[in-house]
Amino acid sequence: MPQKLTLEEINIALKSLTGWEYQNDFFIQHFVFKNFVDAFGFMSRVALLAEKMDHHPDWSNAYNRVVVKLRTHDAAGITEKDIKLAGLINQLS
Amino acid sequence: MPQKLTLEEINIALKSLTGWEYQNDFFIQHFVFKNFVDAFGFMSRVALLAEKMDHHPDWSNAYNRVVVKLRTHDAAGITEKDIKLAGLINQLS
Repeated sequence: MPQKLTLEEINIALKSLTGWEYQNDFFIQHFVFKNFVDAFGFMSRVALLAEKMDHHPDWSNAYNRVVVKLRTHDAAGITEKDIKLAGLINQLS
Repeated sequence: MPQKLTLEEINIALKSLTGWEYQNDFFIQHFVFKNFVDAFGFMSRVALLAEKMDHHPDWSNAYNRVVVKLRTHDAAGITEKDIKLAGLINQLS
C-alpha cells in the first residue's frame, strides 16, 4: 500500500503542481472550460488515465466547471499516487 | 424559456420517475454501479444526451457512485426539461 505523506512532503510536492491546493485531506483543483463539451472531454481523458492507474478522483461537474479531488482512501491521506495523478491531470487540462 | 413547475406538478411527475427525489430545489438520484468503468460509462451516455438536449446535470462521481442533480437554472427550479432528462437518464442506467 502506498504510504501517506507528511504535511511537509505534501507542501514540497505542491510547489511543482500548478493549481492544486491541499484542503481537508484532499488535493483539490477547480477547472473552468469553454463549455460542457470541453469539460466532459477533459473528464473523459482523466477517466481513462485514472482507470489505467487504478486510482480514481472524487469529482464533480456543472456545465463548464469541473472540481477534482484526489486522495488515497486506503492510506487515508495523500500518497505518491495522488502526486503522480495530479501532475498527469495538469498535462491533460 | 421553460416554466418553473409548482410543487404539486413536481410531485405528480415524480410518481413516474423511479428513484428520483426532490431535494433543495433539485431532482436528485444516487446511482451505484459495479465499478468505475460502469459508472463513467453511464456518465458518458448521459453526457451525450445532455449535450444533445442542451440541458446538463450537476453531478459528482466517486469510483462506482454517481450523484445526479437536475434543475433548470434559467427558471430557478424544476421544469419539463428536467422531467424529460430524468426519465431518459433512468432508461440509460
